[in-house]
Amino acid sequence: MDKKILLGHGSGGKLTRELIENLFVKHFSNEVLDRQSDSAVLDVPSGKMAFTTDSFVVDPIFFPGGDIGKLAIAGTVNDLSVSGAKPLCLSCSFILEEGFPLAELEKIVISMAKEARKAEVSIVTGDTKVVNKGKCDKVFINTSGVGLLNASFQHISTGDYIQPGDKILVNGSLADHGMAILAARNEMNLHADIESDCASLNHLIRKVLEAGVHVKFMRDATRGGAATVLAELAENKPFGLEITESKIKIGENVRGICEILGFDPLYVANEGKVILVVSEEDAGKALEIMQSDELGKQATIIGEIVNQHPGKAWLNTGIGGKRIIDMLAGEQLPRIC
Amino acid sequence: MDKKILLGHGSGGKLTRELIENLFVKHFSNEVLDRQSDSAVLDVPSGKMAFTTDSFVVDPIFFPGGDIGKLAIAGTVNDLSVSGAKPLCLSCSFILEEGFPLAELEKIVISMAKEARKAEVSIVTGDTKVVNKGKCDKVFINTSGVGLLNASFQHISTGDYIQPGDKILVNGSLADHGMAILAARNEMNLHADIESDCASLNHLIRKVLEAGVHVKFMRDATRGGAATVLAELAENKPFGLEITESKIKIGENVRGICEILGFDPLYVANEGKVILVVSEEDAGKALEIMQSDELGKQATIIGEIVNQHPGKAWLNTGIGGKRIIDMLAGEQLPRIC
Repeated sequence: MDKKILLGHGSGGKLTRELIENLFVKHFSNEVLDRQSDSAVLDVPSGKMAFTTDSFVVDPIFFPGGDIGKLAIAGTVNDLSVSGAKPLCLSCSFILEEGFPLAELEKIVISMAKEARKAEVSIVTGDTKVVNKGKCDKVFINTSGVGLLNASFQHISTGDYIQPGDKILVNGSLADHGMAILAARNEMNLHADIESDCASLNHLIRKVLEAGVHVKFMRDATRGGAATVLAELAENKPFGLEITESKIKIGENVRGICEILGFDPLYVANEGKVILVVSEEDAGKALEIMQSDELGKQATIIGEIVNQHPGKAWLNTGIGGKRIIDMLAGEQLPRIC
Repeated sequence: MDKKILLGHGSGGKLTRELIENLFVKHFSNEVLDRQSDSAVLDVPSGKMAFTTDSFVVDPIFFPGGDIGKLAIAGTVNDLSVSGAKPLCLSCSFILEEGFPLAELEKIVISMAKEARKAEVSIVTGDTKVVNKGKCDKVFINTSGVGLLNASFQHISTGDYIQPGDKILVNGSLADHGMAILAARNEMNLHADIESDCASLNHLIRKVLEAGVHVKFMRDATRGGAATVLAELAENKPFGLEITESKIKIGENVRGICEILGFDPLYVANEGKVILVVSEEDAGKALEIMQSDELGKQATIIGEIVNQHPGKAWLNTGIGGKRIIDMLAGEQLPRIC
């Protein structure tokens, strides 16, 4: 178990094949992947398909609540899910640093396999590259995914049917992922006991959609945080957004670290949080469904769509004031995902 | 034009959006991408679909005959094409090093857009991550792709119908890409005037398939070279392969460098070469079609499937001898693609 990644593991020859068979196919095994052809062959029904991609460079690669592997599965599953699609399968491509311990790679692969089973998606095709020591940082992972999209959910990613009165919901507390990563970094001597919220949201989202809730928009609040999603949603629209700060849940430890370090939790990355806009009449039902799911216990209605201040998102602060929610400018935390 | 990539370009906030709009959407523009939603939405007919992924870490990023961008498009187009699929669209994900010149990124993006137009595929979704200076090497690109697969071509990636008598073809000279990369590296003072063969082969392959040629197997001979494709094809099969060395074209400069440095051109990477197995009766027709294409002018029949030595690929050498073709063991040239 003290074996390390060699340049030869990326050669396309014998060592590459050993890695594929003894590691990737072993843990990800499924009928399509096991064929090991240049492309995976899928059976698809006619209709709309969603297609997405994400590269993961998170540092550190292991953190409380997850690791780069779990994140790579959940992140792409969530990108498909917030488009209204049912994730079907994923690709998975590794860029490995020469000398990276094989035992750590296996830990990541096992974590990916576990999260994929949980989300009920298959990893059907992959690729491995190895770069010389010092030319990347341990491991980077790209996952791309395809999902089946019911045409009646196609408006969700664009938010075309949003109108004043619609309610804005989120499935729980904000800023957990970003602060967990920050605390896990060695440079700060923080022992904060914060876990990343990193999780695949497809089952939770599916429950809401299948209950017939009129969902008008969904987006996962990752890099840029909830604020960036809300600011982008309002931008150039004939309506405004009003968010009530007191309705936004922030964990006690997370709030503490944010205050000490001067982070606004609204701008900190999440990896298991989705923001939904639903019709006023369905908001209660949506909230109930979300709260009944393990990943939505702390769901709340955080705001609504309004006629006022079109194009802008406003936050009603705890002290009775108001401030504008803008997109993240600059970088808050590099390599958060 | 002396602007550089900042960590903020990967933040998910304003700078990320500027990069997407002023660079990626500007050059890759198409109806699907322009919507900029979390997932691209595609219309697909029912049937078989091919799905593949590849990460590119080639060093140097610009080389005679191409660059990392052209390679990233052609590589994934070729992976889909050799499966018998018609490439439909690609995703594109960048990992950028802080400080990388924006002008170089734009050069790469323009090259990708050009190659995508040539191959008639759209880039419909993407992602950008930025890592701190020194944590990756300039730029890594992942492209994933989906293609439509006619069920009657489904056997091509597995080679199930191969039988003795079938002919083995290749569309031109071998080892150009690997030797072009080697010569382009600064560490060797080689001025070899070698161009990479980097190209999208989908149109050439489509012509062969649509002419009704009975193609039984195809694979692009990338990392590991033609030898690895041939050795893998023979492995555990009830038939053998015989290749005639004199039928394999190698450019004069390429042969020269291979001899000086001790490389076997059969093991050197190509990025625009496909190996086909076709029925004996269709071999002449296939050759003619390939030779009529710009990318197949130098196509030859290099060997055949035989009853002898099942599971093994043999090379009939120029001097009347025979040697076995095995898979590449170890690493020949790191970061070749």
